[in-house]
Amino acid sequence: MTPSQPSTPPIITLTTDFGRQDGYVGAMQGVILNICPTATIVHLSHSIPPQDINAAAFILYQIFQYYPAHTVHCVVVDPGVGSKRRAVAVRTDHGTFVGPDNGVFSLALRAEGVNVLEAVTLTNPDYQLSGVSATFHGRDIFAPAAAFLARGTEPDRLGPAAINLVQIDHLRLPEPGQPVEAAHIIHVDHFGNLILNITELHLDRKDNPRFTIAGQTIPRLSRTFADVAAGELLAYVGSSHGHLEIAVRNGSAARRLGVKAGARVTVSRG
Amino acid sequence: MTPSQPSTPPIITLTTDFGRQDGYVGAMQGVILNICPTATIVHLSHSIPPQDINAAAFILYQIFQYYPAHTVHCVVVDPGVGSKRRAVAVRTDHGTFVGPDNGVFSLALRAEGVNVLEAVTLTNPDYQLSGVSATFHGRDIFAPAAAFLARGTEPDRLGPAAINLVQIDHLRLPEPGQPVEAAHIIHVDHFGNLILNITELHLDRKDNPRFTIAGQTIPRLSRTFADVAAGELLAYVGSSHGHLEIAVRNGSAARRLGVKAGARVTVSRG
Amino acid sequence: MTPSQPSTPPIITLTTDFGRQDGYVGAMQGVILNICPTATIVHLSHSIPPQDINAAAFILYQIFQYYPAHTVHCVVVDPGVGSKRRAVAVRTDHGTFVGPDNGVFSLALRAEGVNVLEAVTLTNPDYQLSGVSATFHGRDIFAPAAAFLARGTEPDRLGPAAINLVQIDHLRLPEPGQPVEAAHIIHVDHFGNLILNITELHLDRKDNPRFTIAGQTIPRLSRTFADVAAGELLAYVGSSHGHLEIAVRNGSAARRLGVKAGARVTVSRG
Repeated sequence: MTPSQPSTPPIITLTTDFGRQDGYVGAMQGVILNICPTATIVHLSHSIPPQDINAAAFILYQIFQYYPAHTVHCVVVDPGVGSKRRAVAVRTDHGTFVGPDNGVFSLALRAEGVNVLEAVTLTNPDYQLSGVSATFHGRDIFAPAAAFLARGTEPDRLGPAAINLVQIDHLRLPEPGQPVEAAHIIHVDHFGNLILNITELHLDRKDNPRFTIAGQTIPRLSRTFADVAAGELLAYVGSSHGHLEIAVRNGSAARRLGVKAGARVTVSRG
Repeated sequence: MTPSQPSTPPIITLTTDFGRQDGYVGAMQGVILNICPTATIVHLSHSIPPQDINAAAFILYQIFQYYPAHTVHCVVVDPGVGSKRRAVAVRTDHGTFVGPDNGVFSLALRAEGVNVLEAVTLTNPDYQLSGVSATFHGRDIFAPAAAFLARGTEPDRLGPAAINLVQIDHLRLPEPGQPVEAAHIIHVDHFGNLILNITELHLDRKDNPRFTIAGQTIPRLSRTFADVAAGELLAYVGSSHGHLEIAVRNGSAARRLGVKAGARVTVSRG
Repeated sequence: MTPSQPSTPPIITLTTDFGRQDGYVGAMQGVILNICPTATIVHLSHSIPPQDINAAAFILYQIFQYYPAHTVHCVVVDPGVGSKRRAVAVRTDHGTFVGPDNGVFSLALRAEGVNVLEAVTLTNPDYQLSGVSATFHGRDIFAPAAAFLARGTEPDRLGPAAINLVQIDHLRLPEPGQPVEAAHIIHVDHFGNLILNITELHLDRKDNPRFTIAGQTIPRLSRTFADVAAGELLAYVGSSHGHLEIAVRNGSAARRLGVKAGARVTVSRG
């Protein structure tokens, strides 16, 4: 399927820390619809905590594999706007990523099976709004770039090749197959579920793994919420790339344990 | 109108308690657009209080009648995910409902003029994501089912007939035409307006109905906000199926009275 | 470009104070899709503070210029619903505005380069839902009007000409070219940035303007966030129509200074 067929409209996803009470996201959508009127615009999240590149990186990693390869994912969490940080577009075999070069694509670009085909720096003013502002590149640079790419413009029209994209080291996962003794929380979701930086590839159920966090021990790896009583803590293989999660059935593990992203989890066995 | 005409794209509405700061809703949309690329996806609400089946049931009841009959309404408020609760699709002459069989469709299915045409259990793996997770049926079962139904797949392809759908008893309304002496709040909206479980069919304006709640009496049934001064309490026939509502003009009745869903209202007359 | 070409679907933007946890916005979307099935519906914001006409006016002003001229902007922030306030549609060369006649279009209609072509009062019941409620004109009057206009219905079919539209005086900007000595905050955004009622046309960088607010003086006009250290206050020409803004780099100026919309800013020079 290609975007030029009538049955497969172009898709652009938006992820920002702009919130929805201002006009920032609305301005980006107007720019996109002017350039690519048939685009299906999908709002992944505009509730990223302000300037939280890690949170945006995780959400993108959670969802990009469910989208067609012709999707353009535009992420604007950009504490360095107005500085010398680069604006980039990265085309892969699992979608094209547009945003600031600050590591926000770290997790998605390293995910299993993703191959980078082309990366460019967004410097060509012909594909930007005239009179680019110093503070709102989401509207002036990233939205037009995403819209042109979604309607089929070749990436190399937008600027020269970009090499050495910024990577965030602590978003790197342990090598698969190596048994781990410690993990940390990389994301706390809306329900207060804690998503860890390790996956089912780092554990063996036959080893009877146990998890200790904030002084509490979870004595086993469960299969689903229904395996424990309401109000109880559990650990299970979650729905995102097989990452381990810690939750409270019908409750909030983050509130119960008083923890947030970065908190350490000890893994023991037997 | 049928979804196959170019001028009437398929419509899928989404109602969840997932919030918008995570990637859960974004993953569902990707799955939908892969299966049904021309779908118009409408977000009814993702701010349902976690696991609040009643609130989701009410919102669906508020809106389904305004949508074309070919609309698929997908609701994922699912405290029983991973247990034996069924996943269902219910086709009616006022839209098709997809979600967990936990009573979330109680109000819509009992609404005036709605006829159930077909109900199925979503068990056929050909219409699910491969490798269904134990915790995220929204993405793995409900989103694909909604997308296949929206593009015209017959419900009976998705699984065997479902009988005895779960109904939530306290969401049942009093029999119309019977004068009522008590009511309760079934929903508190964003403005703090209180929506009651009785409609204009349970009251007669000529009886001069009065309403007492949290020790305060509202001495009459008004027509609109402009009938009282700013800051005053009023009761009126609201905009949802003729349900009675209690509000404060330019204020919040929920905050003024300190009440929430379930609170009792006494109705007296004369 | 006209909406009748397949490649330019009709666009309707929605701005309300309804929030997203109820069914109000969902009902409006159903009404729109029934009348104009191919509409691209854009949610500008549903988080306008309840009844805050100024905030809605500002967001519309921030974004309308980025949308194609065939866009219909529907705004429902309507404390006067049920009173005698008019419901109007205003066609301009920069989009059509639909909503209550309460001044919510004040800023957009006065913006540089905008010409009003036609204004009507929405009184024709043929273009309303049957049985208009007294409290929810968003669904019953404004959504159908927006949908009919988006699919090409001429405004004069919807009702007679409307003259003397309500204007909000304190949303008027100072005359350009006149040096100002005082300004005030017209909007506080999601990041806590303060947007002032003056633009770059009211200042001359060569005069070395300084800004005093809440007892703190900002000694210069910066170009971008990167011009100051993290945590420092700055003033700069923002991204909306060249308005001046006051911010804290990687922080919230609203929280730092304890100010909100309406607060005064003194401008001195030299």
